[in-house]
Amino acid sequence: MEVVLAKKLGFCFGVKRAISIAEQNINAQTFGPLIHNKKEIDRLKRNFYVDSVDDIENLDSDRKIIIRTHGIAKGDFQTLKDKNSEIIDATCPFVTKPQKICEEMSGCGYDIVIFGDISHPEVKGVMSYSKKEPIVILDVEELKDKKVGDRVALVSQTTRRVEKFLEVANLLIKRSSEVRVFNTICNATFDNQDAVKELAQSCDIVIIIGGKNSSNTKQLLKIAKNYCHSCYLIEDENELLKEWFEDKKMCGISAGASTPEWIIDSVVGKIKDY
Amino acid sequence: MEVVLAKKLGFCFGVKRAISIAEQNINAQTFGPLIHNKKEIDRLKRNFYVDSVDDIENLDSDRKIIIRTHGIAKGDFQTLKDKNSEIIDATCPFVTKPQKICEEMSGCGYDIVIFGDISHPEVKGVMSYSKKEPIVILDVEELKDKKVGDRVALVSQTTRRVEKFLEVANLLIKRSSEVRVFNTICNATFDNQDAVKELAQSCDIVIIIGGKNSSNTKQLLKIAKNYCHSCYLIEDENELLKEWFEDKKMCGISAGASTPEWIIDSVVGKIKDY
Repeated sequence: MEVVLAKKLGFCFGVKRAISIAEQNINAQTFGPLIHNKKEIDRLKRNFYVDSVDDIENLDSDRKIIIRTHGIAKGDFQTLKDKNSEIIDATCPFVTKPQKICEEMSGCGYDIVIFGDISHPEVKGVMSYSKKEPIVILDVEELKDKKVGDRVALVSQTTRRVEKFLEVANLLIKRSSEVRVFNTICNATFDNQDAVKELAQSCDIVIIIGGKNSSNTKQLLKIAKNYCHSCYLIEDENELLKEWFEDKKMCGISAGASTPEWIIDSVVGKIKDY
Repeated sequence: MEVVLAKKLGFCFGVKRAISIAEQNINAQTFGPLIHNKKEIDRLKRNFYVDSVDDIENLDSDRKIIIRTHGIAKGDFQTLKDKNSEIIDATCPFVTKPQKICEEMSGCGYDIVIFGDISHPEVKGVMSYSKKEPIVILDVEELKDKKVGDRVALVSQTTRRVEKFLEVANLLIKRSSEVRVFNTICNATFDNQDAVKELAQSCDIVIIIGGKNSSNTKQLLKIAKNYCHSCYLIEDENELLKEWFEDKKMCGISAGASTPEWIIDSVVGKIKDY
């Protein structure tokens, strides 16, 4: 059985970086989950004694504190500084960017519009850096009845689609004299989707590895099914069934943005043994 | 015969302002034609002794110099200042705005993109204010093979369509980290078009007044014809034919952006007499 990995799959740059930081800081704590993947959080605790602490009051000021990939609110950052603990910032640089933009632009008097999900930790963090109340919208429809000034700065949550971002930008440009548009979208998720689309066309079976409830993983499965008849979604190698691979020659592999490399490696190893 | 004027027609704010300036400065000179309308230029010469001088070398430094509505190049402005003549700036404020933006943004290191016609005096003037070579494009297609930096400022010629401007903005936003979009479009031309569309629906004859070669005038005629069967384009009242108005009750009037009010008044007066 030949196994081919999608050109892009699994963790993005920011998540890989955060995990590397955690592995280098044995016995540290993270404020909130470092990334959105429980198996990986458990591994970091088991192998590197890195704890995840949800309540800021419960953080131990004698241990290093790692800031998670999605970032935290500016006020919480100050509270951590006041504890005099050693702080290690694992905020993804793609998330730090809109935080800084909001801080600077609101300080220059621009109205701030954030295109994203107000309930997501990343967006909550970005919002907290604005010196005036930001306008947070999930789509252009929500913008229509909002009052926006004549000078506006626009940023996006990193995981949003550029087409929808442009709809928001366009309405703002029609209405305001100056719109400073900062394209803060990270293409990692969409790169994974593009890669599985290309891969599935040349395979007779495709295995997608990731959480069954993960929306980006299910999206990968859906795309693969458009191009290949035999597609399966598994959380780890234990769910593989040998019979799937009968009469198959080329197996493609992709993985959700929350799937660690070591799970991918185990799956690939087992399939190669068939 | 009832005669109704379109809610918006003829000269825009900037042209009206420039003519008023010329009328108040008897014996002045304009560097190039003040506006794009020969009959009006002739009237200013006849009644107010305002000359139009095409060559900067031929301007008389003992007479006031009026800067035309579309603006002039920054270097020419300096040459005029060096003559120590009295300069009266009749540049439309909607044109001064993109000039200032280009100067400031290029000074701050932004690449400059101008959406407009490189052969138009307005665009030539705006270009001259950029401290680095600006990119001038007539549509998004022309932008596709242009190399643009990561920080871009975008302005528009005042008479361009916002939909086409957004196409340019969108491609820039996809490619660059920061795009400062300045909506410098003036809606005067489109307001005239919207107004004739509304007017033609309630009239049984529509008269459009303007140059037979004027593209914005022909556009008004085309729109009117969609809503009314009897539409005529005339340059002045001498072209009116009484037979057009037989059995008609309501006559709508519109005029191109280069049609002076006194021509409109003459036409209206003659039709009312029928």
